[in-house]
Amino acid sequence: MKNTFGSNLCLTIFGESHGRAVGAVLDGMAAGCPVDEAFLARCMDARRARGDGLSTARVEADAIQILSGVREGRTTGTPITLMIENQNTRSGDYARTAALLRPGHADYTAYAKYHGFQDARGGGHFSGRITAGLVAGGGIVLAALEQAGIQISTHIRRCAGVEDIPFAQDDPAALAAQLAQLKQKTEGFALLDGAAEEPMKAAIRAAGSEGDSVGGILETAILGLPAGVGEPFFDSVESVLAHMAFSIPAVKGIEFGAGFGFADLRGSQANDPFRVDEVGRITTATNQNAGINGGITNGMPVLFRTVVKPTPSIYKEQQTVDYPARENATLSIHGRHDPCIVPRAAIVQSCAAALAIGDFLCARYGEGWMTLPHTFFQEEG
Amino acid sequence: MKNTFGSNLCLTIFGESHGRAVGAVLDGMAAGCPVDEAFLARCMDARRARGDGLSTARVEADAIQILSGVREGRTTGTPITLMIENQNTRSGDYARTAALLRPGHADYTAYAKYHGFQDARGGGHFSGRITAGLVAGGGIVLAALEQAGIQISTHIRRCAGVEDIPFAQDDPAALAAQLAQLKQKTEGFALLDGAAEEPMKAAIRAAGSEGDSVGGILETAILGLPAGVGEPFFDSVESVLAHMAFSIPAVKGIEFGAGFGFADLRGSQANDPFRVDEVGRITTATNQNAGINGGITNGMPVLFRTVVKPTPSIYKEQQTVDYPARENATLSIHGRHDPCIVPRAAIVQSCAAALAIGDFLCARYGEGWMTLPHTFFQEEG
Amino acid sequence: MKNTFGSNLCLTIFGESHGRAVGAVLDGMAAGCPVDEAFLARCMDARRARGDGLSTARVEADAIQILSGVREGRTTGTPITLMIENQNTRSGDYARTAALLRPGHADYTAYAKYHGFQDARGGGHFSGRITAGLVAGGGIVLAALEQAGIQISTHIRRCAGVEDIPFAQDDPAALAAQLAQLKQKTEGFALLDGAAEEPMKAAIRAAGSEGDSVGGILETAILGLPAGVGEPFFDSVESVLAHMAFSIPAVKGIEFGAGFGFADLRGSQANDPFRVDEVGRITTATNQNAGINGGITNGMPVLFRTVVKPTPSIYKEQQTVDYPARENATLSIHGRHDPCIVPRAAIVQSCAAALAIGDFLCARYGEGWMTLPHTFFQEEG
Amino acid sequence: MKNTFGSNLCLTIFGESHGRAVGAVLDGMAAGCPVDEAFLARCMDARRARGDGLSTARVEADAIQILSGVREGRTTGTPITLMIENQNTRSGDYARTAALLRPGHADYTAYAKYHGFQDARGGGHFSGRITAGLVAGGGIVLAALEQAGIQISTHIRRCAGVEDIPFAQDDPAALAAQLAQLKQKTEGFALLDGAAEEPMKAAIRAAGSEGDSVGGILETAILGLPAGVGEPFFDSVESVLAHMAFSIPAVKGIEFGAGFGFADLRGSQANDPFRVDEVGRITTATNQNAGINGGITNGMPVLFRTVVKPTPSIYKEQQTVDYPARENATLSIHGRHDPCIVPRAAIVQSCAAALAIGDFLCARYGEGWMTLPHTFFQEEG
Repeated sequence: MKNTFGSNLCLTIFGESHGRAVGAVLDGMAAGCPVDEAFLARCMDARRARGDGLSTARVEADAIQILSGVREGRTTGTPITLMIENQNTRSGDYARTAALLRPGHADYTAYAKYHGFQDARGGGHFSGRITAGLVAGGGIVLAALEQAGIQISTHIRRCAGVEDIPFAQDDPAALAAQLAQLKQKTEGFALLDGAAEEPMKAAIRAAGSEGDSVGGILETAILGLPAGVGEPFFDSVESVLAHMAFSIPAVKGIEFGAGFGFADLRGSQANDPFRVDEVGRITTATNQNAGINGGITNGMPVLFRTVVKPTPSIYKEQQTVDYPARENATLSIHGRHDPCIVPRAAIVQSCAAALAIGDFLCARYGEGWMTLPHTFFQEEG
Repeated sequence: MKNTFGSNLCLTIFGESHGRAVGAVLDGMAAGCPVDEAFLARCMDARRARGDGLSTARVEADAIQILSGVREGRTTGTPITLMIENQNTRSGDYARTAALLRPGHADYTAYAKYHGFQDARGGGHFSGRITAGLVAGGGIVLAALEQAGIQISTHIRRCAGVEDIPFAQDDPAALAAQLAQLKQKTEGFALLDGAAEEPMKAAIRAAGSEGDSVGGILETAILGLPAGVGEPFFDSVESVLAHMAFSIPAVKGIEFGAGFGFADLRGSQANDPFRVDEVGRITTATNQNAGINGGITNGMPVLFRTVVKPTPSIYKEQQTVDYPARENATLSIHGRHDPCIVPRAAIVQSCAAALAIGDFLCARYGEGWMTLPHTFFQEEG
Repeated sequence: MKNTFGSNLCLTIFGESHGRAVGAVLDGMAAGCPVDEAFLARCMDARRARGDGLSTARVEADAIQILSGVREGRTTGTPITLMIENQNTRSGDYARTAALLRPGHADYTAYAKYHGFQDARGGGHFSGRITAGLVAGGGIVLAALEQAGIQISTHIRRCAGVEDIPFAQDDPAALAAQLAQLKQKTEGFALLDGAAEEPMKAAIRAAGSEGDSVGGILETAILGLPAGVGEPFFDSVESVLAHMAFSIPAVKGIEFGAGFGFADLRGSQANDPFRVDEVGRITTATNQNAGINGGITNGMPVLFRTVVKPTPSIYKEQQTVDYPARENATLSIHGRHDPCIVPRAAIVQSCAAALAIGDFLCARYGEGWMTLPHTFFQEEG
Repeated sequence: MKNTFGSNLCLTIFGESHGRAVGAVLDGMAAGCPVDEAFLARCMDARRARGDGLSTARVEADAIQILSGVREGRTTGTPITLMIENQNTRSGDYARTAALLRPGHADYTAYAKYHGFQDARGGGHFSGRITAGLVAGGGIVLAALEQAGIQISTHIRRCAGVEDIPFAQDDPAALAAQLAQLKQKTEGFALLDGAAEEPMKAAIRAAGSEGDSVGGILETAILGLPAGVGEPFFDSVESVLAHMAFSIPAVKGIEFGAGFGFADLRGSQANDPFRVDEVGRITTATNQNAGINGGITNGMPVLFRTVVKPTPSIYKEQQTVDYPARENATLSIHGRHDPCIVPRAAIVQSCAAALAIGDFLCARYGEGWMTLPHTFFQEEG
């Protein structure tokens, strides 16, 4: 399916960095869901570059034009087409070094797959800019989930060597408070620890000023999912969330709950004891399995972390190959690049997760889950 | 799609731990591929329990019965049905504790999804035993890949606190030698470091003797893949391999190449410089990106590690819930369980990866890739 | 997807005519649905040959063995594997003429696709026998639909030049009575006009006695579907029912409602006027559009007819090609063949339609539609 | 998948009749295929209304804007987004009768599915206008097929009671000449018999002048397909072509080759004898099976006919229901409508078939079939 994700709720993304537009078609939304363009604009704004030494100097308004599927502020039930025109393109920057493969980037693999016909300007279809369509479409689902009482939020767990406070994995109430806190923080980085922001920014700027870049770790929480969502094997909740997460450029790893830490735990430490809470609901005393047992949700929060590698486009001189000449060469990249994409990727990861979860809910509750009464999922859980 | 994986090369798995049979239907194999039943038997043997204090005392021959799709030792091109009858089932062990949810297991989520109609005996469809079908079907693909010059192998990178030698990520020749070494090791654990085997076994047995279990990390290498395989976004090679890896019960994390280590690297360290080798091929000097740039293979080895959590079924007393009574309870599991499934899961991960790669090759080269001349993929790369 | 049908409710079929077994895996049934083996046996019996001069002398009991997914007479929610072992195979009949391509059959196309590795015995995977798996799996869905108040039934509209009474397309009550009548007719052909049966049988026997075969037309009705099922374009109800119907070997045409007759109607004759009935429901005064407008059901009965070509395997001498020799030749078929498969195909068409409708209901109402209260779909309509 | 068709070569369509734009995303084209905008414009022109009493007075230029996936006249290998802005919309015509369900149209089913949130203006997403995206995307595939030596063409077999000369089903050379003739006919209706055009137009105008509409039959031929394409059961060539054909609004039946005529043939008449031709190729002496045996192509031309019902929007007064009031009412439609859409639908059917065939070729030959040498498919056949 290449550029389409989902079976029942499907997103198809399109566009190239320096082409006419990027965007997406979202198909499978029930009719009648509110589409809050101001909310979508805030999502787009969260992934927008600011040209502040923390992200690329290519700054665009990224206004979403809705070509179909929405009328009078509500979904019509048919495909929603979202177009974001490219404005601030300076392809000349790339032309100078077009023959030289940028290490860590998809320049060479694009040649191998597309035989030179790819639109290489600004990374073309491999550019992080393509995630604008993912945010536009995923943002609509994110809002529908929120209306259903299911919240998805992502913070920067670690970046440029600076740590944030971890999500309260084992404590749904504390986690809910953290999500509320992130929601209120409309400026700056998605961090729980306000004291981490300046040191993190400083560390990113420091790397950027050396012509280098840094990576980091994003942590996402999904709160309010009922138990019983997902499939035992190939469509386990982990499988589908991971599938989606690795669609985000630069993600190279994902772990759920205790994650790689499980390697050094014993079963008696790793198992989450079941408990009956005061209202007769089944919960777990800990949540190392991140709300998923046997691929299926158990009603506890779903939590995962991804690692985002350092932006491959750096200004430092690098060894590489002149592709047409097939000889070794030295590359100094010009153009405008982010010293770190981790902060901008947070909203992308939330939107990606929303699409995956939305598709699961379609499978379980049918195409109309977005219109179920507000309390439905809470009662199900 | 629930229990089916793949778009062009598809595996559908079925069965329950204590039902009549487990198995799989593999559809999409080209006609005329040799099916070496002795090789399949060795794959099945590698995931087989041995009742030696290292794995469950439930020991079965796991003979594969081929119901369709193979004639005179070759694929016919139509669906291959593989059935493994269950023999050594002792459901009585489970009946005693059927009301009690086993922590870390899918008992509760199965109730949430299947409302009590699930076959709960021995974990039913959630049992690791279902991976027998995955190995049976994936083994056929593994052999087809090997004939095409593409090798997939998995070793135990870490288990019960004992480490093996890592795969030689940056050096394809050294890695090929490691794969050859693993191939020759037909007995015991899949380890590169012979000296690690006894300490690892001892540590597993120690945990088992305490009624506990341990987890670990598996590392898989894919060698010989040409450049240009995969898709930029949703069907990135990482996405599909991760989707498949999380289908394996107990896997809770995956990382490619430098993986979570990328969080603390700078771009100048993380980028793999391109080089032209002596025969004019483009390679990379290092391989931290694990042979994948922008979701597409670059011809270098693909490498990933998964974390396998400790077996949830332990003999130690645990806190849990009596599901019908909806009250807190104490559980002491009987039955037969593995103190560690990591060693048995190695072949499962190789077979899972083979299915994912086989499907990618169908998309790129058509349904007949298995019958392309032996040298085709090497020349493509 | 080759041998798998459906997105949410999926059937995978397997087997060869003279192999060990044929069968199917049905995935996506909700847990807790009753599986009435006696009903399934009746479905299988309806497509069974009888060796009575009307169908092939290859007579088999076709007992279904359930390998997984059903426990204590109810679905568990996980894949249901249905195996029917082949018993009465006489491959020798085919060996004599194996080099000669049977006209109208898939012998040549199998060579073109499978390069000689196909299992050619008895038509292999192209045999009508493979529909046994379709009936086994589809029968389970047919029963689930019936429990939900949705009835599917097929009769022989025309065969060997003899006509049956048409379904009462425009009158749901009369149609319901016809379906009840067909249900009670457990012996002989699926006909509304009892007086047509003997002439039809005589005409089939006459063709058979001349070493020839005949075709016919099947008519299927789906009663009780609520309005609002289906999709506007690619997954129109007609699209998916047709996709499924053409999976049945020998089907070469399908038409809905007035069908090809629409070519000679005017819009004023073809449009079905909407009416409000006595209980305030919207119906149509006529039903030439067969319950489907714009690809979506309108609550009126869905009706379609397929044409089934005459069985290609005939005893009359035919002109053909010796494939290995690549020269023209003359063929006289031996073996056991049906002079007409239309009567046996009726249940196949009902089961096929059930699978398509079941998948649509999953998309609309979620995986649990089979467990919705009996009156749900009536109220929806 | 709702509005997406295809597994490897995928088209997603979007838009509403009176919304901002209609269009499509075509994903899966190999890189480097020429995109001839003049050819696409001719395809669009062939489905364009002319306001000449034969089609609706809503006349639009239907210029295709390519938003992504094409650079310097060639495909880049990534998704191709095609947008056609709506210009000549007069929603006011509809507002007057918005409460009244148009018989034969999707007004009621849209209510049932979308609960009143659908964009009802001009039929919204159910309008024939949405096929503009299908033609834009399918046209690109049509051109790629033609470059590969595979031709698809559709003529009006019958319309308003006037017949055209049938395609020369049994004679590939004569059929090729017919296709060449149609290709040269760039003006007026797609007819082989020039003498039929004026009577056909007169009959359409006559119906239109009475405020009525007429239907007809389209016939499509696919020439140059190699043998061996398609799958035995669910993805038979008939299944997938039919699936696609029923996506076209107003299509209510499809038949291949002898089609419904098979009901009255005997096997000895229906079977196409195999023959070896002068260059050693296997062909059939007749072609009643329309180039498909067992769901798979045999190298002979593929032929099918669809019936297109009379346009449901007619000016004659009709009985219907006032939906909000739930009471019977009388409807007189205003707005601009085609008295017959058959002539405009011919190119839609060719483009739809091209998409289906293109997807099959991806499955068989991989994503790069469009770039195989010109003679490849001829040699395969």
